[in-house]
Amino acid sequence: MAGAGRVAGHLAVALHQRGHEIVQVVSRHAEPARALAEKVEAHPGTFSSHPPVPPADIIIYAVSDHALEEVLTLLPPEKMLALHTAGSLPADIFRGKAEHYGVLYPLQTFSEGREIDFREVPLCIEANTPDNEEKLQTLALSLSRRVVPASSSQRLFLHLAAVLVNNYVNHLYVLADELLQQEVLPFDLLHPLIEETTAKALTLGPQKAQTGPAARNDENVIKKHLELLSCSPELQTLYRMLSDSIRRRSSPEKK
Amino acid sequence: MAGAGRVAGHLAVALHQRGHEIVQVVSRHAEPARALAEKVEAHPGTFSSHPPVPPADIIIYAVSDHALEEVLTLLPPEKMLALHTAGSLPADIFRGKAEHYGVLYPLQTFSEGREIDFREVPLCIEANTPDNEEKLQTLALSLSRRVVPASSSQRLFLHLAAVLVNNYVNHLYVLADELLQQEVLPFDLLHPLIEETTAKALTLGPQKAQTGPAARNDENVIKKHLELLSCSPELQTLYRMLSDSIRRRSSPEKK
Repeated sequence: MAGAGRVAGHLAVALHQRGHEIVQVVSRHAEPARALAEKVEAHPGTFSSHPPVPPADIIIYAVSDHALEEVLTLLPPEKMLALHTAGSLPADIFRGKAEHYGVLYPLQTFSEGREIDFREVPLCIEANTPDNEEKLQTLALSLSRRVVPASSSQRLFLHLAAVLVNNYVNHLYVLADELLQQEVLPFDLLHPLIEETTAKALTLGPQKAQTGPAARNDENVIKKHLELLSCSPELQTLYRMLSDSIRRRSSPEKK
Repeated sequence: MAGAGRVAGHLAVALHQRGHEIVQVVSRHAEPARALAEKVEAHPGTFSSHPPVPPADIIIYAVSDHALEEVLTLLPPEKMLALHTAGSLPADIFRGKAEHYGVLYPLQTFSEGREIDFREVPLCIEANTPDNEEKLQTLALSLSRRVVPASSSQRLFLHLAAVLVNNYVNHLYVLADELLQQEVLPFDLLHPLIEETTAKALTLGPQKAQTGPAARNDENVIKKHLELLSCSPELQTLYRMLSDSIRRRSSPEKK
């Protein structure tokens, strides 16, 4: 395992739990590698100094996008199946640097201290040959019940969609929180609504779940809200764009 | 109960379940009033034709914002405590039309066929006199464990925040779904991520939960995503605005 950050950590622990042997955890800094190596009973090392160990079948580069090329130089895959875990990098980033390669992209957000049921994490896989794909699929299926072949281009769109439903949805929560703080109201007043909104979108699908002033083209309320936001031009513009975007998709009889 | 739509329906059923007597359900059309009245053992009627019944203490106008004034004329509150349930209408809309009035605003999205635990629905209340506020508070506390006094101005902001975390969050799900459809990928690949995003924001608070390319100011990924969206100028602009808005709030060391 090359890397000891959040993705590397969650992945290494899941692999360890499913009975895979993690030979070595190698990272830029000694301490995070040591901590993760201890958790998964592996040898620790750094990119610039790692002890020789029995060879592994697979090397997983779970490092940040911009670090991958450098790490590949410091820690070449040699004969191992080289995998990266990035949504936005093509599989071909390994071309010329590895003979056997592919991608194992977990479609989930990982945080320190939050447990994730890895069996439920969709794993998007891609490999450079059918043999490597089979090997990768076996590995992925040992971790998750949701394994999906996805091309580099599909993965880019998946990552983009993930940014929308994770980072941008969360940002709307931040903006709502800021509005309530202004009025000295606690954010947790919105908790039941947020939970129900999520549950409804997952059950009905988001198209059928849409309601509200924009979906029913309620000019009065939209105008009121835009006035309310006259002191926050950023949020006002965002509000207008989102309501226009919803209106364009709504049939007139919709609520 | 004036109105037989989704809010009226959920509210009437909750009131009935908590032992309140619903004297009459009156609506514009006979059929929805009849159906709801039957559910809560009340007399049905329409705004233009409703049988005389024993007087009620309270009349709840759970009708759409633009219908309220007309309904008030057709069905004046007389001596009853008049309540409306709208986020965006002031309590004073009753001034000159009712002696006793207030607002009972449930901060939740109600859908036909989806059960909501009313004990968990925040009820925002406001009344025109301390006596009426007490009466309203007693009513509200019989329905929910979360009763919050909120002025008309606070309620406006609550409603606006609710639009952000409900309609606009749901719209981001719609946009993500459209992206995946383009790539022939199913929306339910995003389900675990959506659930974890929500759970994380509610547990940590949205500020601490923020991650992603914009929060860590990852120009490469942002540029890639904007290129990917070159054929969807609407979504491209939205992406740029949201990522800028996140970047402005992020400290450089943030992930």
